[in-house]
Amino acid sequence: MDLKSKIRTVENFPKEGISFKDITTLLQEPEAFKYAIDELIKIADEYDYDVIIGPEARGFIFSAPMAYAAQKPLVLVRKPGKLPSETESHEYALEYGTDVLEIHKDAIKKGDKVLIVDDLLATGGTTKAVVELVQKLGAEVSAVLFLIELTFLPGREILSGYPVRTVLEY
Amino acid sequence: MDLKSKIRTVENFPKEGISFKDITTLLQEPEAFKYAIDELIKIADEYDYDVIIGPEARGFIFSAPMAYAAQKPLVLVRKPGKLPSETESHEYALEYGTDVLEIHKDAIKKGDKVLIVDDLLATGGTTKAVVELVQKLGAEVSAVLFLIELTFLPGREILSGYPVRTVLEY
Repeated sequence: MDLKSKIRTVENFPKEGISFKDITTLLQEPEAFKYAIDELIKIADEYDYDVIIGPEARGFIFSAPMAYAAQKPLVLVRKPGKLPSETESHEYALEYGTDVLEIHKDAIKKGDKVLIVDDLLATGGTTKAVVELVQKLGAEVSAVLFLIELTFLPGREILSGYPVRTVLEY
Repeated sequence: MDLKSKIRTVENFPKEGISFKDITTLLQEPEAFKYAIDELIKIADEYDYDVIIGPEARGFIFSAPMAYAAQKPLVLVRKPGKLPSETESHEYALEYGTDVLEIHKDAIKKGDKVLIVDDLLATGGTTKAVVELVQKLGAEVSAVLFLIELTFLPGREILSGYPVRTVLEY
């Protein structure tokens, strides 16, 4: 299936000069969305993993159906103040300032093998923070999966040391 | 399956005196998560609908697997500034102040029958705003589905006029 034809490019979003890959048009086509999820699961099946990690918020859209279909536990990584029980947190640098991600401390165990799933690999900064967060809890990263990769950005370099797999490259 | 046993209650979150229903423990049990999604789909099957509406962010966790498994289009409702193309927006009152929700204008058509899916029905304020937002685009609400209902809060009254269905009541 030509998945790229299902993804809309919106120019100058979120700011001037950026061509934004809009996955909402893909979500509106059930066969295409199913194909995308099933492709991600096929890639995931090449790795040994215990848990799928889904970062807020677009990460939920791909990680949750994968967890449902592959019958794997789903663990959320969220913005501060969203997870109700005891959390581990990790602060990381953005272009301007810093941001924080949180995970429930009891959601993964030392030695767990995790698969991180998100919609898009751009600079890789947020995903690197997710990697560091799960490592704080003693987990190992089996692989990092994205539906889309923007290959003109250095995301893959920043995540070097972990298998990085993507379905669509731009 | 005893789904309630998979949902953790966290006391005094997000503030003193509130017993928070934590679905993250459910997500970590693949059989229970699959059961929850399949129960939601069974209820959905009683209605005639064209599109599933998933509100940010926990709504994505249930609406996306439903869309995948039931092979229905998924349309996102998001906080302001997240959707890249032309949006319709709706401002609504919170306990203190107001909030805004957005939807892509071309995501639903006049006369479309929509199913709104979210994790939890509490006061119903946000869901009412989602209803009003889709109505601005001329859509009809077939039903509103939640995994969990807090029956001691007036959510169901606020949504009267639409079928409101839930899997678990507290």
